[in-house]
Amino acid sequence: MEVVEKVSELLKKIKAGKPVIHHITNFVTMNDSANVVLAIGASPIMANDPAEVAEVVSISKALVLNLGTPNENNIRSMLIAGEKANRLGIPVVLDPVGAGATSFRKGICSKLLADIRLSVIKGNLSEIMHLAGVHSISHGIDSCLQYDHGTDIVKGLAGKLNCIVAATGRQDIVSDGKRTYTIGNGHEMLSKVTGTGCMTSSLAGVFCSVTQDHLIGTIGGIMSVGIAGQLAFESLRPGEGVGTFKARLLDNIYNLDEGTFLREGVINGG
Amino acid sequence: MEVVEKVSELLKKIKAGKPVIHHITNFVTMNDSANVVLAIGASPIMANDPAEVAEVVSISKALVLNLGTPNENNIRSMLIAGEKANRLGIPVVLDPVGAGATSFRKGICSKLLADIRLSVIKGNLSEIMHLAGVHSISHGIDSCLQYDHGTDIVKGLAGKLNCIVAATGRQDIVSDGKRTYTIGNGHEMLSKVTGTGCMTSSLAGVFCSVTQDHLIGTIGGIMSVGIAGQLAFESLRPGEGVGTFKARLLDNIYNLDEGTFLREGVINGG
Amino acid sequence: MEVVEKVSELLKKIKAGKPVIHHITNFVTMNDSANVVLAIGASPIMANDPAEVAEVVSISKALVLNLGTPNENNIRSMLIAGEKANRLGIPVVLDPVGAGATSFRKGICSKLLADIRLSVIKGNLSEIMHLAGVHSISHGIDSCLQYDHGTDIVKGLAGKLNCIVAATGRQDIVSDGKRTYTIGNGHEMLSKVTGTGCMTSSLAGVFCSVTQDHLIGTIGGIMSVGIAGQLAFESLRPGEGVGTFKARLLDNIYNLDEGTFLREGVINGG
Repeated sequence: MEVVEKVSELLKKIKAGKPVIHHITNFVTMNDSANVVLAIGASPIMANDPAEVAEVVSISKALVLNLGTPNENNIRSMLIAGEKANRLGIPVVLDPVGAGATSFRKGICSKLLADIRLSVIKGNLSEIMHLAGVHSISHGIDSCLQYDHGTDIVKGLAGKLNCIVAATGRQDIVSDGKRTYTIGNGHEMLSKVTGTGCMTSSLAGVFCSVTQDHLIGTIGGIMSVGIAGQLAFESLRPGEGVGTFKARLLDNIYNLDEGTFLREGVINGG
Repeated sequence: MEVVEKVSELLKKIKAGKPVIHHITNFVTMNDSANVVLAIGASPIMANDPAEVAEVVSISKALVLNLGTPNENNIRSMLIAGEKANRLGIPVVLDPVGAGATSFRKGICSKLLADIRLSVIKGNLSEIMHLAGVHSISHGIDSCLQYDHGTDIVKGLAGKLNCIVAATGRQDIVSDGKRTYTIGNGHEMLSKVTGTGCMTSSLAGVFCSVTQDHLIGTIGGIMSVGIAGQLAFESLRPGEGVGTFKARLLDNIYNLDEGTFLREGVINGG
Repeated sequence: MEVVEKVSELLKKIKAGKPVIHHITNFVTMNDSANVVLAIGASPIMANDPAEVAEVVSISKALVLNLGTPNENNIRSMLIAGEKANRLGIPVVLDPVGAGATSFRKGICSKLLADIRLSVIKGNLSEIMHLAGVHSISHGIDSCLQYDHGTDIVKGLAGKLNCIVAATGRQDIVSDGKRTYTIGNGHEMLSKVTGTGCMTSSLAGVFCSVTQDHLIGTIGGIMSVGIAGQLAFESLRPGEGVGTFKARLLDNIYNLDEGTFLREGVINGG
């Protein structure tokens, strides 16, 4: 079965099962992540206090960790929730927002990588390069370096960490250390709206919650946002811009069906 | 006077008085609650630190408490603010998001119910069932159980706690322990956008701030979101979905007038 | 060169330089601030923990502080980040949301004014009046007093604090203590959407990051939101309201170009 057909199948499972997806995420885009998870047919929980996250994990089908606005409390919650998710065999997705930007975030990344068995790490290329130990000059958190050896870095990190690694950018790269795919969907306007990267990680969590094949699950999340972004942009009328685009992005996530992936999905590699 | 006429009258009072509504609420839907309160013509304050919430209550006309993302700090703020509101005779609305989902939330609910005299408790049916001690199997926070005896449970809890209790769902049930109403407005798409339940609680606070009859006030808040949701859905064009729906929901809250309730309001019971 | 021409020039610099703007802001409108900064072509970072804010300032071109939901932790972060910004000569914009509403906020304002050298203070007139020691009766945080002597108060405070002071309202007043301008752009619907004031402060930060003339920078931020608000309102169709308006506001910020300021900018004084 082709990759896009597999992704299509997962969408059906999501809509049938309405999996609960637990997020411990940043304060900027919490609302966006909750909305994208609802839009695709799953059910978000955003509990973030150490006092309850383990219990919340136990009623969830995936855990999404996002470092956008880290503090002592939510990092403690991530460690507790991650350990619980590992014990229960629930997939854990990490979005290492701003990895490498400060020593605080460097320390957090090291700790999370050491203590939690991650299923998926999804960042932009500069974040993934930091995790891979390849130094880059960061230009803020929304930066998106182009790097000729992006594919090698992603594949290498995936092999080293034994998990799925995805670097999003003009071209999205996803690898499990053996198979490596590039996804050709997406639109530049996605980089002009905050939270679209976080939404992608949330949807990676949603797709991974209904399959053991987390490579395909991660592709499903990335491709969903990419295709919805393209369709959202195409629907804009003269004078419209990022505000209307954001509403249409959610519209198009909501309206995704199996056919959408077959018609619009662009993927290479294997 | 009919219920919908009373609700209409309250809307006029809101637009004339612009009541200040203090929220101590979750981090996911704070922005949505602030916007819905502004849209209907009132004025939101979202201060949530124990150091200032009592003072903020003293310049407010209602207090809305929401358990979406509880932590030690905001619970302490809720207790301080609730006590102050009780002392000043300001209505207190509780939205027990995820009540029963974790022991942390169970403990918080018990504490709030014991220490604060609540005017209104508004949750989904599974949350209300938990508070009523009727156990249900929770499927995440957005779950919405159908239960034949919903009306009895809501009425019984209202009588026991001596406050207004409302359970929202396919059909909304509101009771003061004696009179019980069911509201037939709303649209299923409301359950596909995060924050619509929180918005409902916020508007219950707004309506209760301008009347002593909190049963009617609560109906006003629920009916506003229900009607606006219907009208928002009807206005969608092909290809639009939850993103555009959310914008139109706020549009329709903003455009509510007395006539809207008389034309669209669907309510039974008494 | 005229003021609007100078603002136009700054917009070009923003789009070319994509300056990183660090925010330590409230939890209600973080997402809106991040989106407006992206929409105009700059790059937001919203890190708010004391452990990393100094390092984040060092990779930023401006710092925006906003008191919407103050607590001990974010105030500590503001002091650390402000000191660092002062040391590096990076402009600091303060939005004293709700200044004067509680003694907690009064204390915070005093502390920030004493410890940080501010480039710009932008509030509504009642907030600015509080800082100027002119007492007003507050009606919530979104209040907007009209005051005949507004211009004198703004100019006086700017002179006293030796920074740019801006009071937004039906007419926006901006002064450096010597030159004082009033901006005639804007639309009343901006006051019906939460976060538009915060967006204005964010854009003041963006414009100030590309010029030493912070009076012009502040005018640029205020005028951008004012013009985009007017254009957004004009684009509304029957039945639309604040929800669609908010999306169109971001659309119009995104579509601002040099010509927009020359065509639409309304400014008096000097």
